[in-house]
Amino acid sequence: MFQINENYLKLPGSYLFSTIGKKVSAYSGAHPDKKIIRLGIGDVTLPLAPAIVSALHKAVEEMGRAETFRGYAPDLGYEFLRNTIAENDYKSRGCEIGPDEIFISDGAKSDSANIQEIFGPENKVAVCDPVYPVYVDSNVMAGRAGSYDRERGIWSDVIYMPCTEENGFLPGLPKEHPDLIYLCFPNNPTGAVITKARLQEWVDYANETGAVILYDAAYEAYISEPGVPHSIYECEGAVTCAIELKSFSKNAGFTGMRLGYTVIPKKLKCGDVALHSLWARRHGTKYNGAPYIVQRAGEAVYSREGKAQLEAQISYYRKNADYIFNGLKRAGYTVSGGVNSPYIWLKTPKGMTSWEFFDYLLENANVAGTPGSGFGPGGEGYFRLTAFGSYENTVEAVDRIRML
Amino acid sequence: MFQINENYLKLPGSYLFSTIGKKVSAYSGAHPDKKIIRLGIGDVTLPLAPAIVSALHKAVEEMGRAETFRGYAPDLGYEFLRNTIAENDYKSRGCEIGPDEIFISDGAKSDSANIQEIFGPENKVAVCDPVYPVYVDSNVMAGRAGSYDRERGIWSDVIYMPCTEENGFLPGLPKEHPDLIYLCFPNNPTGAVITKARLQEWVDYANETGAVILYDAAYEAYISEPGVPHSIYECEGAVTCAIELKSFSKNAGFTGMRLGYTVIPKKLKCGDVALHSLWARRHGTKYNGAPYIVQRAGEAVYSREGKAQLEAQISYYRKNADYIFNGLKRAGYTVSGGVNSPYIWLKTPKGMTSWEFFDYLLENANVAGTPGSGFGPGGEGYFRLTAFGSYENTVEAVDRIRML
Repeated sequence: MFQINENYLKLPGSYLFSTIGKKVSAYSGAHPDKKIIRLGIGDVTLPLAPAIVSALHKAVEEMGRAETFRGYAPDLGYEFLRNTIAENDYKSRGCEIGPDEIFISDGAKSDSANIQEIFGPENKVAVCDPVYPVYVDSNVMAGRAGSYDRERGIWSDVIYMPCTEENGFLPGLPKEHPDLIYLCFPNNPTGAVITKARLQEWVDYANETGAVILYDAAYEAYISEPGVPHSIYECEGAVTCAIELKSFSKNAGFTGMRLGYTVIPKKLKCGDVALHSLWARRHGTKYNGAPYIVQRAGEAVYSREGKAQLEAQISYYRKNADYIFNGLKRAGYTVSGGVNSPYIWLKTPKGMTSWEFFDYLLENANVAGTPGSGFGPGGEGYFRLTAFGSYENTVEAVDRIRML
Repeated sequence: MFQINENYLKLPGSYLFSTIGKKVSAYSGAHPDKKIIRLGIGDVTLPLAPAIVSALHKAVEEMGRAETFRGYAPDLGYEFLRNTIAENDYKSRGCEIGPDEIFISDGAKSDSANIQEIFGPENKVAVCDPVYPVYVDSNVMAGRAGSYDRERGIWSDVIYMPCTEENGFLPGLPKEHPDLIYLCFPNNPTGAVITKARLQEWVDYANETGAVILYDAAYEAYISEPGVPHSIYECEGAVTCAIELKSFSKNAGFTGMRLGYTVIPKKLKCGDVALHSLWARRHGTKYNGAPYIVQRAGEAVYSREGKAQLEAQISYYRKNADYIFNGLKRAGYTVSGGVNSPYIWLKTPKGMTSWEFFDYLLENANVAGTPGSGFGPGGEGYFRLTAFGSYENTVEAVDRIRML
């Protein structure tokens, strides 16, 4: 008789955003007259930029003609895209990352869930608390998390690095040495950023202790201040200890297009085994490339028109972030994030739990956000709002919250 | 110090098609004047059909306008696509599969590699020999295959079901009871098909012994004879023992588009745990949906125009298959497959090994095929040719082989 992967049964409840979706649907079904504003899930709302639309049409035309049709993509992704990324995201910042160290994928969510597969089952994982749930859940599924303490909301074999108001939502170096360290800056969910000097400490720590940093830079495009690194490879020695995950979802509105990439420097090794070759093997065996047309759309992100149009989109979302941040601050809320990030992290008022505040906002302001506790016990008493709504809706949502 | 997943190091050589690609590139680099005809990897060559191109343009337009822009897709895929699949691929054949039992994905390769994740590590896997390498390699990576016997080319913990000339390339029911049985019909690589009566025996066997059949029906569109089931759910009782994997690559030329789906009936359970809920959890945690525009393209596959245009494409490839099959037969080769399948499986001449014949064909006829031994020890002495080339190239390749 076949057996299931028992680790799946350890997972409490369903995936955070599915739960939110169900709650919002239920409320909306019961109150069809109410206009619910969703500032919860990190989904964008602006349409694809004209340069991207035009690249897509062109690529679709190519796929419709025998002379230009493309079948299976190269394992690592098309060279035109890898070259463009290497040039724009790395060479321009003085990072020594070559095109053949870049793996194109269908997004940072898949990559951040799958990357743990190339590591052994005994590796000790460290995550920030609060944290993007995918890092933890994918390790639970792989049997690396131990058992779940329902009361405390933590896993026995995971090292939690608290990110609190006191430490400015920046984790301290863990005393117990982890093997795999998940870091995300600008952070999801807190919106916090790390300076280059502080990130260098992490890189040094990882190199000294033999750990790998899994660096999620999905929100890099929102960095607006100097001194904040756009890539971990701006730090010295990162090529021997860090994997970087990037997304096109937030900088180019690709949430429904699915494109991302992972960088594994060839110098990142365990003994004489390059992690690059393991991930290449995984890509070759379990994946078949992002669609050609989507890779062409990704290329257009770096064109002159694309860059200008997307800078305008990011400015638009930044204006939303600013409105939420300052609006709620003036209303007496304790807020952080929002400056180098599309996420605003606020303290729930009157000692409400995160889910209590979720229900309270949904019912009284018809605004859907994300409960901080959904990101781990350290998120309890916090709430995440995103800047990805329309400006009109964002203003209306904030005004409704201020009226409460 | 972090550790890697040691199972990766057990994998011999690199992935079959990467090796072929490298060999062809090397030959082509050394002989730039030679025109190499590739009938190796199962990649299509006809451009996307007009109905699909037009659906893509329309969807791209939608993505470029605020009112019709789509962000994250629903976890299981868009309803418009799941409904269409349920109607056309199942209800029309009398199979009791609902839209909510269908999971849209980026292709059957990913699904067939990932599906093993929801099963326990101790499950015993059975595969046909020869076999599509992904089934085996993904289980090796998960630690389910045991150790590799380099000399015999087999894994200690895998049950191999020989598919030989003697049994008409149809495996017999294994004596040792497996937990997971991978079946693929029309078969890759042999092109063999199974009758409904024979497949029913497998379904009965799985239900009796508590096994799950992972049924890869990627080549279903090439079935031309009556009595050959298009879906395993045509068999009685399959909903309690079978998962079906489907692709848009071969019926609609989506190799570079990436779209597929997996069916997990809700009645398929281990105790009281539905495999459906485990796969839903995996989808929700580790995947973020196929691109909206690609899902719309998938929908167009089932439109009236789409169906007619794709039937013409399949006829085109069938004509190729027929030319290869009969051309080589007349030239004295022992051939099978090709009738309900785009693959022709031929016996290598003069006792050559599969790779010897690969080199021989590449050097003397400038034709690249796939060595049978790349699909497992049972493929040794065989060679796979595909019908996915252009008609002109197919004719030229066969004529060149006949001249040898």
